[in-house]
Amino acid sequence: MSVIYNRVALIGLGLIASSMVHAMRRAGLAGEIVGTSRSAETRAIAREIGLCDHIAETAAEAADGADLVVLCVPVGAMGAVAAEIAPVLKAGATVSDVGSVKQAVIDAVAPHLPDTVHFVPAHPLAGTEQSGPRSGFAELFDNRWCLIVPGDADADAVARLRGLWEGMGSFVETMEADHHDLVLAVTSHTPHLIAYTMVGVADDLRRVTDSEVVKYSAAGFRDFTRIAASDPTMWRDVFLNNKEATLEILGRFTEELFALQRAIRQGDGDMLHDYFTHTRAIRRGIIEAGQDTDAPNFGRAPKKT
Amino acid sequence: MSVIYNRVALIGLGLIASSMVHAMRRAGLAGEIVGTSRSAETRAIAREIGLCDHIAETAAEAADGADLVVLCVPVGAMGAVAAEIAPVLKAGATVSDVGSVKQAVIDAVAPHLPDTVHFVPAHPLAGTEQSGPRSGFAELFDNRWCLIVPGDADADAVARLRGLWEGMGSFVETMEADHHDLVLAVTSHTPHLIAYTMVGVADDLRRVTDSEVVKYSAAGFRDFTRIAASDPTMWRDVFLNNKEATLEILGRFTEELFALQRAIRQGDGDMLHDYFTHTRAIRRGIIEAGQDTDAPNFGRAPKKT
Repeated sequence: MSVIYNRVALIGLGLIASSMVHAMRRAGLAGEIVGTSRSAETRAIAREIGLCDHIAETAAEAADGADLVVLCVPVGAMGAVAAEIAPVLKAGATVSDVGSVKQAVIDAVAPHLPDTVHFVPAHPLAGTEQSGPRSGFAELFDNRWCLIVPGDADADAVARLRGLWEGMGSFVETMEADHHDLVLAVTSHTPHLIAYTMVGVADDLRRVTDSEVVKYSAAGFRDFTRIAASDPTMWRDVFLNNKEATLEILGRFTEELFALQRAIRQGDGDMLHDYFTHTRAIRRGIIEAGQDTDAPNFGRAPKKT
Repeated sequence: MSVIYNRVALIGLGLIASSMVHAMRRAGLAGEIVGTSRSAETRAIAREIGLCDHIAETAAEAADGADLVVLCVPVGAMGAVAAEIAPVLKAGATVSDVGSVKQAVIDAVAPHLPDTVHFVPAHPLAGTEQSGPRSGFAELFDNRWCLIVPGDADADAVARLRGLWEGMGSFVETMEADHHDLVLAVTSHTPHLIAYTMVGVADDLRRVTDSEVVKYSAAGFRDFTRIAASDPTMWRDVFLNNKEATLEILGRFTEELFALQRAIRQGDGDMLHDYFTHTRAIRRGIIEAGQDTDAPNFGRAPKKT
């Protein structure tokens, strides 16, 4: 593949940005990659491991002269970064982001940007429970979806960003911001909140000691703890900035949970059995769609016999 | 290792029983393994793949003359199986089970058994989302815990069963039945119910089509679908038979969820950040205890760079 952007600036150097570096390099998509982080420690680590071609001290220094600037900071920090970089943005440059919420990011970022740049918000649906500049790897986006929310952005600028994400291994789909935020509330935000809650409950129980909960976690709980080990700042910002959709889905969840709770209390085995049979079919759909491994237990215990 | 039981009978041939066959054979723990299933189709598959030394037509036929009989059927079916095998049990034999609930199994099974046998309930904390006689593998119990609930059973019989589980790769701990049921309500039963609920909610949402939920599941939801793909009959019986502890933990869960929901509604970022930071530490404990892989995303996307 050939270079799509001569100079790419990544603001924020966590899991997504560092994976983007590796994925862009794997396919030769960027002429030069400049990165920066608000944290001096993160900048030092990035320099030490040679993550980017250059590590800038500030967002403005990184964005200066870039053909593509990608905001890879928590959703709540996007607006301030946009305000900082706005004065130095090159005419014709594209500004994008990787935030898990789209409407709030658009509201926070767009007002700061000059008319001479293209703002094309995006969200790669990929991640692990790890964070920081050392956690990235080139394969993170392979066969995962990246949702682009183009609004009324220039078609050529959108096509170019799509080319970058496809070059990094992603499938790309475009979507309206509010639909994105609702879909993600279902597939990501509410599941994360529920996992955090369950882990919190387990920790809070004094009669079941920490060590027992940890020791016997393989029975299901450990899957929740993986999800609940994700970056706290990122997730705080997601919930604060996708409040309406998350609260709506949480309301549906609670309603459904109460129905199952009632079935348990009343001993309604048929209701439970029907419910559990139905959810099994959804798992099959995900495996058929190539969005998860069909290896038992995520392949933790490979079948050798 | 040497033979611990000359003749082992497995009643029910699902994931746990078929894994026990492979694990016992790996270590040479059983002289002869007899299996049976209520389902003719399951018995035919077991014969076809040569799972056991002999496949019996009925539970009574399998249990006849066995030194160890293990009930590997859903919790709700244990009592009927105990009643069926009671007349043929050899004096001095051990009867055990692998049920996910212990007090209800003891209540259902113990009254049927003659005084001449040792009843030693057990519960291996291991499993995958798959089921049936083809799903077993020898490594399933390696480094996983098996909880034995000996009550007032004969110490030699308990030590012998412990030896079997250790020989199959497990760590063994003994516990009181009601404590077992509470610990499992936290580490397994409630997490499963919550996962089933979240998958049900996603499926139920008409505005977010099935295909979108499936397509974009990698953002967290797919982990829930794995848990919610477990055997429906087994899980129906778990909830019906560990009603009290599950409802108690569900109550705690709902209380906690409402507190987080309130923090989102009120925009209390500090509360959310503190909560998410705290749960992250629990994940570290589980990895340190060797109960999960520290590979990001369960090792689904191995870091190659």
